[in-house]
Amino acid sequence: MSDSRLGAEVKIDFSRIKRDIAELSKIGRRSEVDPGLYRMAFTDADMEGKRWLLNRIEEADLLPVSDGAGNIFGKIIPEGPAAKKPSVLVGSHIDTVPCAGTLDGSLGVVIGLECLRAIRASGVPLARPLELVAFSDEEGRFGAMFGSEAFCGFISPSRLRERDLEGISLSEAMLSQGLDPSAALDAARPRGTVDSYLELHIEQGPVLDSAGEQVGIVENITGLFKWQVRLVGDANHAGTTPMEMRNDAFIGLADFAHEISRILEENGGEHSRATIGTAQILPGSANTVPGMVEFSLDVRDTSEAILEELKNAFRKALSAIARRRKLKFEFDELSSIKPIDADARLVENLEDCAKNLGLRYRRMPSGAAHDAQMLARIAPMGMIFTPSRGGRSHSPEEWTSWEDMEAGARLCLEVLLKRVQDPKDLI
Amino acid sequence: MSDSRLGAEVKIDFSRIKRDIAELSKIGRRSEVDPGLYRMAFTDADMEGKRWLLNRIEEADLLPVSDGAGNIFGKIIPEGPAAKKPSVLVGSHIDTVPCAGTLDGSLGVVIGLECLRAIRASGVPLARPLELVAFSDEEGRFGAMFGSEAFCGFISPSRLRERDLEGISLSEAMLSQGLDPSAALDAARPRGTVDSYLELHIEQGPVLDSAGEQVGIVENITGLFKWQVRLVGDANHAGTTPMEMRNDAFIGLADFAHEISRILEENGGEHSRATIGTAQILPGSANTVPGMVEFSLDVRDTSEAILEELKNAFRKALSAIARRRKLKFEFDELSSIKPIDADARLVENLEDCAKNLGLRYRRMPSGAAHDAQMLARIAPMGMIFTPSRGGRSHSPEEWTSWEDMEAGARLCLEVLLKRVQDPKDLI
Repeated sequence: MSDSRLGAEVKIDFSRIKRDIAELSKIGRRSEVDPGLYRMAFTDADMEGKRWLLNRIEEADLLPVSDGAGNIFGKIIPEGPAAKKPSVLVGSHIDTVPCAGTLDGSLGVVIGLECLRAIRASGVPLARPLELVAFSDEEGRFGAMFGSEAFCGFISPSRLRERDLEGISLSEAMLSQGLDPSAALDAARPRGTVDSYLELHIEQGPVLDSAGEQVGIVENITGLFKWQVRLVGDANHAGTTPMEMRNDAFIGLADFAHEISRILEENGGEHSRATIGTAQILPGSANTVPGMVEFSLDVRDTSEAILEELKNAFRKALSAIARRRKLKFEFDELSSIKPIDADARLVENLEDCAKNLGLRYRRMPSGAAHDAQMLARIAPMGMIFTPSRGGRSHSPEEWTSWEDMEAGARLCLEVLLKRVQDPKDLI
Repeated sequence: MSDSRLGAEVKIDFSRIKRDIAELSKIGRRSEVDPGLYRMAFTDADMEGKRWLLNRIEEADLLPVSDGAGNIFGKIIPEGPAAKKPSVLVGSHIDTVPCAGTLDGSLGVVIGLECLRAIRASGVPLARPLELVAFSDEEGRFGAMFGSEAFCGFISPSRLRERDLEGISLSEAMLSQGLDPSAALDAARPRGTVDSYLELHIEQGPVLDSAGEQVGIVENITGLFKWQVRLVGDANHAGTTPMEMRNDAFIGLADFAHEISRILEENGGEHSRATIGTAQILPGSANTVPGMVEFSLDVRDTSEAILEELKNAFRKALSAIARRRKLKFEFDELSSIKPIDADARLVENLEDCAKNLGLRYRRMPSGAAHDAQMLARIAPMGMIFTPSRGGRSHSPEEWTSWEDMEAGARLCLEVLLKRVQDPKDLI
């Protein structure tokens, strides 16, 4: 119905999306028995995925381009002065974490590809270029969002020296694939040439699935701070050291973990999250009172002001616990990323289209990081979420039902059609 | 004063104890820069320590013996029918944990050796044999207290298949040192042949040191149970999973750790201890809600009844937390050792002698395990503690002041003299 209103001839062929997902999910397998995908950035599997994508782009009669950061593009450049207008970009990434599922990133690329195929085939006139993009190393083999960071012009040569868990540097990995690392510094797209960026991605959380909704419209991407905290007490014999004479570093951590809910209730908002995901206990013997713990604290919110309040509250709690338990404490801030908003006009477009398509949707924040948050710093950004069954993510179990994928694809196409036919720039 | 009362001619030569400590502390060094000792059971260093001890035993004109478990003895066998009476044993162990200090075990052996040297040289008539002993593998390269366990007749052939952290079996380790493992099964001393066992050991805790006392007289050795507990929740994305939709296994552990003090207050006694010494968090990534934790729980008390109550209380707490946090839980009991009492007559002897010597002492429990608890199952047992400076133990920093060592040695000699001159058996 709404398809016909916006461009009767532009139709998604969902069977092609299914086929592309099936094909791409064969690239990066390690064995018959391991259901996980291993398409980490600049591995052979990742490069095979990129060649597969370039082949699909050529088949679809799109203009294939790869830039110095290994980002892959498939472009439709209209005739005449429209070719010089800022581009609409749609896409995501096809690299994966180790032992990944098949949809994280890939779904957005495959749906973006089908949208461009459909628009190309329809011959609908474009007011501006339209580009499919798959950004390099979103998942962070070398520090996350490398491709979009380079595309946005935010990298410096030191970025190329970042190392993966095995100690291989980004430069070395690129060279081993026949790529020139220094060319990544030339991948920056000139400012003002991107009209807008649209990314479809799986939610990676349980909200849409448990509410029975088909798509999420992202209002903002949470900011975060990540601390590495050390509490230092005294390692002593578990049998001979009376309870009241202990400086037990682990009990300090337990006290702190126990405070998290209070701190979020007092200082956080409905989108606040705080997680202790790692903890190392030293010396780590059953009959020794822990002398030191080192743990991670990952805190997220969509509001910069709330993040600042949470920082203060967590710092105070640590300090009070250290004093009470006679521990020393220190922490390093490993990262601090500001929250960023989606473009209000794109959010409205997405909502209008979702209503027109009769989709069950909700506006929501993104709790995970995405290339979209890099792009939002240089251009208007919009994001579509599809439901993650059971909230599963970074796991071979991650999935979105075919019906919800199709709903997401239709929404993506609608909004793209609006943007590429609109002669007025968003930027 | 009391020396003269009991046997004017029997005198400790403390300079020999100092020399022996210095010599023994050179065996098992790995490098100039590492202050730790590495004399783990049945390593080359441990065997070198045993040869050193046998040489000292021969020098002192004691009868050197080693049994099938690698236990080392230095005996004084009196003439006539006294030779057939049950023996008094004094000793400890000379094997160490990795990166150990110089006194754990060794101090008891070195002081016992000097007591026998002094008694031998004095020519004081003995009513029964007196034996110095150094038991094998007290520290547990292969499961702890192997030598005393064999001596007491508690081992079976399966014990010889226990493996160290590198996967080497006890049998293999003994064979590599030219020892016949099966001979360990013949190391059992016939029942009724041990009159009493006396062990001097560093406290390994802070109690004597912080109270400014010179010796501790052990009333009992705490029993313990050791659990390996698993809490299983769901690993999810730290950014996308709302707090109220998490089943965070680590928060379950934090809740549990937080309950320890309440559980001890409600169900424990003044000697109760509970320690979480290890915890592993899976998958162990800063941006993933922990899906599983596995941790150790080490609980000790001197009362079997209290230990049972603590078991019930900890089980209930785990079960309630698992229910509240929507986690699964399970645990394995890795070990369960009953508390055991020192012999009341020996405790009284020790106390009398300490008073006569004018020592600052206290009766106290042992929170750590010792060969003495194995021996207590076959013979009357007594233990002397010397203060551990700062409570340090299993560390190159462990130390007892020379003055306190000498106080312990004098007490040890007094009680030994009483026992070996007493024609009435304790057993």
